[in-house]
Amino acid sequence: MTKTIIGIMGPGEKATQQDLDIAYEIGKCAAEAGYTVMTGARPAGVMEAGLRGAKSAGGQTLGIIPSKNKAEASPYADIVVVTGLNSARNYINILTSDAIVACGAEAGTLSEIALAIKEKKHVVLVTQNKKAIDFLKELAPDFVHNVKNAAEAMQAVMKLLQTD
Amino acid sequence: MTKTIIGIMGPGEKATQQDLDIAYEIGKCAAEAGYTVMTGARPAGVMEAGLRGAKSAGGQTLGIIPSKNKAEASPYADIVVVTGLNSARNYINILTSDAIVACGAEAGTLSEIALAIKEKKHVVLVTQNKKAIDFLKELAPDFVHNVKNAAEAMQAVMKLLQTD
Amino acid sequence: MTKTIIGIMGPGEKATQQDLDIAYEIGKCAAEAGYTVMTGARPAGVMEAGLRGAKSAGGQTLGIIPSKNKAEASPYADIVVVTGLNSARNYINILTSDAIVACGAEAGTLSEIALAIKEKKHVVLVTQNKKAIDFLKELAPDFVHNVKNAAEAMQAVMKLLQTD
Amino acid sequence: MTKTIIGIMGPGEKATQQDLDIAYEIGKCAAEAGYTVMTGARPAGVMEAGLRGAKSAGGQTLGIIPSKNKAEASPYADIVVVTGLNSARNYINILTSDAIVACGAEAGTLSEIALAIKEKKHVVLVTQNKKAIDFLKELAPDFVHNVKNAAEAMQAVMKLLQTD
Repeated sequence: MTKTIIGIMGPGEKATQQDLDIAYEIGKCAAEAGYTVMTGARPAGVMEAGLRGAKSAGGQTLGIIPSKNKAEASPYADIVVVTGLNSARNYINILTSDAIVACGAEAGTLSEIALAIKEKKHVVLVTQNKKAIDFLKELAPDFVHNVKNAAEAMQAVMKLLQTD
Repeated sequence: MTKTIIGIMGPGEKATQQDLDIAYEIGKCAAEAGYTVMTGARPAGVMEAGLRGAKSAGGQTLGIIPSKNKAEASPYADIVVVTGLNSARNYINILTSDAIVACGAEAGTLSEIALAIKEKKHVVLVTQNKKAIDFLKELAPDFVHNVKNAAEAMQAVMKLLQTD
Repeated sequence: MTKTIIGIMGPGEKATQQDLDIAYEIGKCAAEAGYTVMTGARPAGVMEAGLRGAKSAGGQTLGIIPSKNKAEASPYADIVVVTGLNSARNYINILTSDAIVACGAEAGTLSEIALAIKEKKHVVLVTQNKKAIDFLKELAPDFVHNVKNAAEAMQAVMKLLQTD
Repeated sequence: MTKTIIGIMGPGEKATQQDLDIAYEIGKCAAEAGYTVMTGARPAGVMEAGLRGAKSAGGQTLGIIPSKNKAEASPYADIVVVTGLNSARNYINILTSDAIVACGAEAGTLSEIALAIKEKKHVVLVTQNKKAIDFLKELAPDFVHNVKNAAEAMQAVMKLLQTD
């Protein structure tokens, strides 16, 4: 009965249009596959795009916000978990996700990728940033799975969920 | 689109049959009214009874667990948020709830009642423990609402949600 | 080599002059006895009075603040631990204290007393609030030790530390 | 009166002899300069080596542990802050440090580097891992300061503390 949760991590205000498109698409595909989509819930960037994508397919969404104020969450989050923990909530994002997709590797997202590796959880890393790939693949070759687009990301997620 | 969340707090292993019956009934009524029911997610006591009640009415349930291990959550939690924060997660239970029902006032629940008062959030306290009522009503007369049973608890919750 | 830490909990802005006097005296006596004094570090109420007392005796002080901003800590805290966790930091106050003194039982302090009981840690409760005493002594007779003043509080702390 | 805290981050069990030597030396130099040295407090790797170095120079040490159990902290930590937050405590390590030295960039340390950058805090990164340097310097050129050894690390720390 417990839902499988796909966590989509990525930049807020600094997200590029490509980041947004990829996050939206992953959210949509994950919802179509029956998964609950989770993001950091702020009404910005990859966090909101992933939730919007999931809602476009009639999916269920979960947002875990860093602040104390539920009103600050994206309206695309069906269920809002309010932590009041600032960036310590990144750890909860990782523990809560059954599969983790990271769109890029800016500072906040990088902290989530690093915490995932520390917890021996797999991360599907959607980026073409060669330096990020080189470093993270060397750091954790068994846990970091680099892909180029939303379609490849969903394939990787599906494969990881079947293996677990 | 964002769901209203009714948080049901109460003892785990130490819950009495009456605690369990009340929590189940509140979970059931909250679900029938269209609310999402949240508890601390451990497969014990009030936490599980509240979730079971909600599921008996086809409702949606959210569990926020203290440990790092999703497998430790009650199977009656549709969505499991995994915190790894031990009892620091009690703060998240309070911030996440739009309305809070406390079944009794044992130590863990008392920490949640106290954090709710600190955050100026209302608590519907279902207990006949006279000493708890005397103390908590004096501590926070505007925020502690004592009731005797599940029916009164749901009435109080409804009234609080309409006022907010 | 590791220091024994006496945690002094109590109200901030709402503290009475008596609360402040008691917290100052406990901080002073704990420092004279060679203990490190810990409080919640905000520059107000019992938190600052306890630290000031300890510093008046040349003791060492530790402050654990809820906000992200070290500059918000009391200047009487030698060592400031910055949590950014808002009231979730109350749990850290409890886990960090080898002995816990609660001056009164208002909401924030009550959450700390409750978390201490939950963790099976002893609490020396300095209050003459009869309703608080009645309730908390019934809730946890083995862990709540009610005293009336600073001298009795230090006696109780000493006894608890010798037993541990 | 409030102490300046130098946080030394780095691997536990996976630390190399070189990591240990560098952490010890930085701890020693920081203590000689009058700073309090903070680490993650586990009795292993860079965490313990940094504390040992500081104690060898008669300095003051602070350890912030992830578990609930003070007995698990390194005996070289004078003051032990017990969080019970598992890896969410990494955020506290970063917020508490006035200057941050990262020995290497394995997963746990990387999460701390990333959280520091997110908070716009400077990180002195002691490593010769070219891929880590390339990526992190590109990610946050203004906040990541790469050095090769303990002497350079202390120079960089001193410079950062004077600028702040």
